[in-house]
Amino acid sequence: MSFPQPYAGYPDAKYHKLTLAADGVLLLSFNRPPVNAWIDPKWQELTRILRTARDDGDVCAIVVAGEGRCFTAGLDLNEQSLAKIVADQPDAARKALVMRSHIRDFQEAISWFEYVEKPVIAAAHGVAYGLAIDIMSACDIRYATKTTKFSIKEVDAGLAADIGTLQRFPKIVGNDSLARELCFSAREFDSAEAREIGFLSKVVDGGREEVVDAAVKTASIIASKAPVAVRGTKIFLLHSRDHTVEEGLRYTTALNSALLQSDDMPVAMLAVMQKKTPKFAKL
Amino acid sequence: MSFPQPYAGYPDAKYHKLTLAADGVLLLSFNRPPVNAWIDPKWQELTRILRTARDDGDVCAIVVAGEGRCFTAGLDLNEQSLAKIVADQPDAARKALVMRSHIRDFQEAISWFEYVEKPVIAAAHGVAYGLAIDIMSACDIRYATKTTKFSIKEVDAGLAADIGTLQRFPKIVGNDSLARELCFSAREFDSAEAREIGFLSKVVDGGREEVVDAAVKTASIIASKAPVAVRGTKIFLLHSRDHTVEEGLRYTTALNSALLQSDDMPVAMLAVMQKKTPKFAKL
Amino acid sequence: MSFPQPYAGYPDAKYHKLTLAADGVLLLSFNRPPVNAWIDPKWQELTRILRTARDDGDVCAIVVAGEGRCFTAGLDLNEQSLAKIVADQPDAARKALVMRSHIRDFQEAISWFEYVEKPVIAAAHGVAYGLAIDIMSACDIRYATKTTKFSIKEVDAGLAADIGTLQRFPKIVGNDSLARELCFSAREFDSAEAREIGFLSKVVDGGREEVVDAAVKTASIIASKAPVAVRGTKIFLLHSRDHTVEEGLRYTTALNSALLQSDDMPVAMLAVMQKKTPKFAKL
Amino acid sequence: MSFPQPYAGYPDAKYHKLTLAADGVLLLSFNRPPVNAWIDPKWQELTRILRTARDDGDVCAIVVAGEGRCFTAGLDLNEQSLAKIVADQPDAARKALVMRSHIRDFQEAISWFEYVEKPVIAAAHGVAYGLAIDIMSACDIRYATKTTKFSIKEVDAGLAADIGTLQRFPKIVGNDSLARELCFSAREFDSAEAREIGFLSKVVDGGREEVVDAAVKTASIIASKAPVAVRGTKIFLLHSRDHTVEEGLRYTTALNSALLQSDDMPVAMLAVMQKKTPKFAKL
Amino acid sequence: MSFPQPYAGYPDAKYHKLTLAADGVLLLSFNRPPVNAWIDPKWQELTRILRTARDDGDVCAIVVAGEGRCFTAGLDLNEQSLAKIVADQPDAARKALVMRSHIRDFQEAISWFEYVEKPVIAAAHGVAYGLAIDIMSACDIRYATKTTKFSIKEVDAGLAADIGTLQRFPKIVGNDSLARELCFSAREFDSAEAREIGFLSKVVDGGREEVVDAAVKTASIIASKAPVAVRGTKIFLLHSRDHTVEEGLRYTTALNSALLQSDDMPVAMLAVMQKKTPKFAKL
Amino acid sequence: MSFPQPYAGYPDAKYHKLTLAADGVLLLSFNRPPVNAWIDPKWQELTRILRTARDDGDVCAIVVAGEGRCFTAGLDLNEQSLAKIVADQPDAARKALVMRSHIRDFQEAISWFEYVEKPVIAAAHGVAYGLAIDIMSACDIRYATKTTKFSIKEVDAGLAADIGTLQRFPKIVGNDSLARELCFSAREFDSAEAREIGFLSKVVDGGREEVVDAAVKTASIIASKAPVAVRGTKIFLLHSRDHTVEEGLRYTTALNSALLQSDDMPVAMLAVMQKKTPKFAKL
Repeated sequence: MSFPQPYAGYPDAKYHKLTLAADGVLLLSFNRPPVNAWIDPKWQELTRILRTARDDGDVCAIVVAGEGRCFTAGLDLNEQSLAKIVADQPDAARKALVMRSHIRDFQEAISWFEYVEKPVIAAAHGVAYGLAIDIMSACDIRYATKTTKFSIKEVDAGLAADIGTLQRFPKIVGNDSLARELCFSAREFDSAEAREIGFLSKVVDGGREEVVDAAVKTASIIASKAPVAVRGTKIFLLHSRDHTVEEGLRYTTALNSALLQSDDMPVAMLAVMQKKTPKFAKL
Repeated sequence: MSFPQPYAGYPDAKYHKLTLAADGVLLLSFNRPPVNAWIDPKWQELTRILRTARDDGDVCAIVVAGEGRCFTAGLDLNEQSLAKIVADQPDAARKALVMRSHIRDFQEAISWFEYVEKPVIAAAHGVAYGLAIDIMSACDIRYATKTTKFSIKEVDAGLAADIGTLQRFPKIVGNDSLARELCFSAREFDSAEAREIGFLSKVVDGGREEVVDAAVKTASIIASKAPVAVRGTKIFLLHSRDHTVEEGLRYTTALNSALLQSDDMPVAMLAVMQKKTPKFAKL
Repeated sequence: MSFPQPYAGYPDAKYHKLTLAADGVLLLSFNRPPVNAWIDPKWQELTRILRTARDDGDVCAIVVAGEGRCFTAGLDLNEQSLAKIVADQPDAARKALVMRSHIRDFQEAISWFEYVEKPVIAAAHGVAYGLAIDIMSACDIRYATKTTKFSIKEVDAGLAADIGTLQRFPKIVGNDSLARELCFSAREFDSAEAREIGFLSKVVDGGREEVVDAAVKTASIIASKAPVAVRGTKIFLLHSRDHTVEEGLRYTTALNSALLQSDDMPVAMLAVMQKKTPKFAKL
Repeated sequence: MSFPQPYAGYPDAKYHKLTLAADGVLLLSFNRPPVNAWIDPKWQELTRILRTARDDGDVCAIVVAGEGRCFTAGLDLNEQSLAKIVADQPDAARKALVMRSHIRDFQEAISWFEYVEKPVIAAAHGVAYGLAIDIMSACDIRYATKTTKFSIKEVDAGLAADIGTLQRFPKIVGNDSLARELCFSAREFDSAEAREIGFLSKVVDGGREEVVDAAVKTASIIASKAPVAVRGTKIFLLHSRDHTVEEGLRYTTALNSALLQSDDMPVAMLAVMQKKTPKFAKL
Repeated sequence: MSFPQPYAGYPDAKYHKLTLAADGVLLLSFNRPPVNAWIDPKWQELTRILRTARDDGDVCAIVVAGEGRCFTAGLDLNEQSLAKIVADQPDAARKALVMRSHIRDFQEAISWFEYVEKPVIAAAHGVAYGLAIDIMSACDIRYATKTTKFSIKEVDAGLAADIGTLQRFPKIVGNDSLARELCFSAREFDSAEAREIGFLSKVVDGGREEVVDAAVKTASIIASKAPVAVRGTKIFLLHSRDHTVEEGLRYTTALNSALLQSDDMPVAMLAVMQKKTPKFAKL
Repeated sequence: MSFPQPYAGYPDAKYHKLTLAADGVLLLSFNRPPVNAWIDPKWQELTRILRTARDDGDVCAIVVAGEGRCFTAGLDLNEQSLAKIVADQPDAARKALVMRSHIRDFQEAISWFEYVEKPVIAAAHGVAYGLAIDIMSACDIRYATKTTKFSIKEVDAGLAADIGTLQRFPKIVGNDSLARELCFSAREFDSAEAREIGFLSKVVDGGREEVVDAAVKTASIIASKAPVAVRGTKIFLLHSRDHTVEEGLRYTTALNSALLQSDDMPVAMLAVMQKKTPKFAKL
């Protein structure tokens, strides 16, 4: 099999371009010109794609990028579907309950970058505004080009971010003072600042192609590892973030008592001894 | 209205100097010469000031600084009020219960930098020892002059810090090894080190005036934003710090289903389209 | 008393070398040539040593290092004791329950670096792979030589790390993107990278001797402080990591209402006034 | 509109009989003769039905019952779909991961009795074994005939209950000693015992018809109340069960600040004053 | 000193009648004819009274009752202060934020029955509707006359209860099915039913006088016990309700290590040996 | 093998009498005449016995009782070991830290009734005071004779209960009002009251022999069940008590994905079909 090739697992994507970029690596690229702005059908499709990827043993790691000009400029503010539904409601309570359901579904869609239980690397270029930060924060690893421009833009639109940035971003970075400043002020920041506070782990010279290549390369390395170990690692990392150390250890004990019974361990060890590349069963 | 001007909302402050430093920006400056050391009436007044600021629609952001020589050198160790009350108690249990109430009230006073639900920027110069770190850690954003000296000084006085440093400081910075080293050893650290580990987001050349100016400038930008969005952002950031991502998302959903019904959103969007400065109703 | 001298509190250690390196400072050095690989009796001994140190008033701080070539290269993969026990079990459920007990005991052993309730400084040289990261992450402070090589190696052996790295490492460092990349890929990283993301607080020129000296020096400073304050600080730091700020404050209030009744406070204050070194009762 | 009538909202149910039993009351009856045993497509259909009911303003409360001989005798042990999928997996780890997904989906299906956010009354007759207890425990209110026989049957099949009984049952009843005895021993218990420990709130003379009538009667009363108030009550009751009192109060504050802006409050109060039946907008 | 006598600690109560009913027992009686309906100044006064009682060593236990016709019929629906403030706000978001503050303050007032840290016994007669259940649920012990009528009335007014009933009531009683039924339907229940599900621990023949006498009698017994032990018990019971068993044990360990150093223990033991009534220092 | 017979697994118990009362049932009887009062070596032995029982495949369930006059009258107040150690400490802080360690170890000993991970039935007769309630509350199931007398006695000794009663008792019973009354007042209650509030699940006519027989009979039934299922059930029940429903379900999913791979399931099902008693492998 040669790479890249179109991803056959979800052939009819409308708002995304899907490619098998390397063995075990799905490249999921936002594809709604000109700036990959988000409308409801787009994140509903995203959910379906990630569910497919979760259950597809041929996908071991995922790279997320944007087609065209940028990663994504955020919500499509011209899209009025929610506004219309809300307008139909007779009072503020009912409007609130309708919005509550809508926000919940939207949050779930972005949380699928976690539910997919396979490592996800964001590879950003151009503009990464608003929802872009929600999305990147839900990914495991973040790369960007030198010239990428970031902004937690929601306050400028009159709202507090509600699709995950305020939950995940401060737990990712190592400077809470700057994190809050960026959330309150909506000011733009560049890759150097993003790297310095720990939002990015790599800044790449060049444009979309170069950053995607770098992400695919890391994803390929991960995709070559024992799949039970990699999935377990993601499950435990996410669990640990949200629990005490002691709770995290107990949960690890419970699940790993099964995961340690995989064939991957003898395969991996034999490969080390024979200095060969191990070949694992799919997951 | 011209700035700066005295803050009329709390005219009789005894241990603090209160100024409206810019439109919507309250400058709260510790004012107990020579080193702004803390006694009970001072933090009791602080609570009342911050409660006033919370309920005052003219205050959108707060800058915290110190008058005179420094930000604050910490507790006034000559102050014996607690010691006297404790001495009256007949046994160690009753002494403990008295101190428990006192510590709790003191902690609450400092937590008011969070309860105020408006962004708070600390602007430190000179010495920032002991309680200074408790206070700065309870603020959202931290700036300091190049020559500010910090120390988590409590261990040198024979006690474990109990007004918030041990709770908030390690969640703010990005180097837990250094954080603990500073807590155990009470050694002094400077602005460069504080910036590097993520305690500060800006180090300013010059003295008190320069660092306060920088803080007021950032506070002004924040004060110009949609107030419902800014308050929501602070509420969600604080909630998120103390909850799982999932809990944080659910809480956001509950409250934002009301906050998204503000008039700030259409005002903000119209301003973007008309390239004008938006004018929001007070909060 | 002159230092260093053998530690008399646990004279018969088989897999560890124990030294009183300075007044109040226990140097605990892994000692199983050639690479300090771990077998069950080694961590069982470690538990007993740390329990002894916890209850020994002469130990105020601990430095952890490796004898010989390196800190530790991780698990001894030739050791088959668990494999044999597991093989005896008739089905996957019973195998799982046996492994669950084993993992739990192993986790507890490493958590004793926290249970000891005295500051622990890891001083690493050479190779620090796999279990080395679990161990260092359970310490309070981390130093290493310039040439130390780190790796979260478990995925390469076909398993997800389960002795604490996935729980503690991401809460220590300030770049979650890089943290996850290192967990998924098992790639080696050096001291510079470890310092930059906040895993280390000091990188030392030279070899084992130099890094141990630096750690002992810091440990000595800590050992000279009021012991009730230092123990309280460790108790509160660990509690805070795993609780909300509010819970942390309340717990501090409860315990500190007793700890503030120590004689260390007047001793410390008198020493400050007299500019003498304070002399505290043991703990 | 006259009642009962077939429920038009989900016309093609295969394993359930759906009736509008009264104004605003959906009667959902398990319908897989002879004993309403559960297979995967049955709970997958259940999920879809409850999702429909959640979004249907004509459904204000739900009664759950069984067609024919009994409420449900539990899992269909002849159904081998999971066994077959598991058998295909090469090792115990992969078998575990497949089962983990399957159990999770099954749990979610039963949790839909909570996610539906409208009150659910279980009306049991005949046998209520195994999964019947998982289901009834996920409902809000439980009625049964005098002759209904209950059993937490899972231990007799060699497994620990994993679809919710062990989580919800002990939080529902007021005798933890008996609750655990029933979980460990799988012994049958009758309606009198179930009533005494607080599992049931009503025991009805007669058979399926009588208990369903009693449940529909209570459901009708609930369906006549202000729908925003009823939905809010269910949301808060579920939240409260899983949080501290303080967290519960805060969450209530957040959401109720919107829900109190409904038109239901003036409508309800006017009705009280006019001694008329209030007429609320749908939700 | 003879009892009953007016309570001198808070002489000017407007909406409450305060009596020292026995040695160490404060009788706090709601006093706003005809049905003790609640308005803002009433619960604001309640907060001040309970704060006074907390700090008054002469108060060891509290009995809560209603003057006149009943315990309390709930909110005064004629009171429009909140409605007026809300009406002034320009949009649903700002209305929500104003109500959020108001609900929070109201909740806090009722939570003062817990914050007072001394045992509180509710003694109900007549009608106990709506807020009456919020209040009684925040007390420790509940007695009522045979003829008391209860209702979780909020749904009938078009709102979900938000002052604590939905948080505390289900954790108090032993029949969650009935608890939810009462919350959803607002139906009246009597003392027998309230006793059966565990809401009450005593039903008293007679009227207000008899139930108050019974409560004062129990309160007197409690007031005669070691005050450090009683306060510790209340602190630990409240902490335990909201934490895991393990967390509860740890917190107990922290605080009891001080409380066990009281003089009450030797006093109590000596009294047992001498078969005398112990005399404890005040708290 | 005939029963009862001495338990060979721990032959030298000093403060306990150990018997195999039936196949798989360990009868652990407190044995320190005259009233089984507790001293440190007694609970230290208890820990060792329960650890042995946990690891002994021949023990499937445990019955706990008292030799001689009663279950246990609580702590031995003549025992002064802790008092002596505490007296040696120079200040209240150090006394507190010593007591903290001691209380923690004592709590752990009693928590071993949970850590043993096999069902435990308490069978009480005579007096069950103070520590008796801590112990019974840590057991899974509670039986008593009609004449057993209970008291949460600690307040009468001047202290708040700290070995688990305040944590576990209120979560067991269905009447929080009575639970708190008993904790505050230390008043004696009998088996009828204990049964009514849900502390006991069976009250037995007769004395020690009869209640132990009843407990052994129930324990025998449990001991005949699939051991993986029974252990899983206890693990999940304890986890569920201390977690949200959602957390409980997730943990169940993790561990049960291994436990469902036991041979007990096919053995149990075959036995059902063949109407034979199943024979399970030990655990």
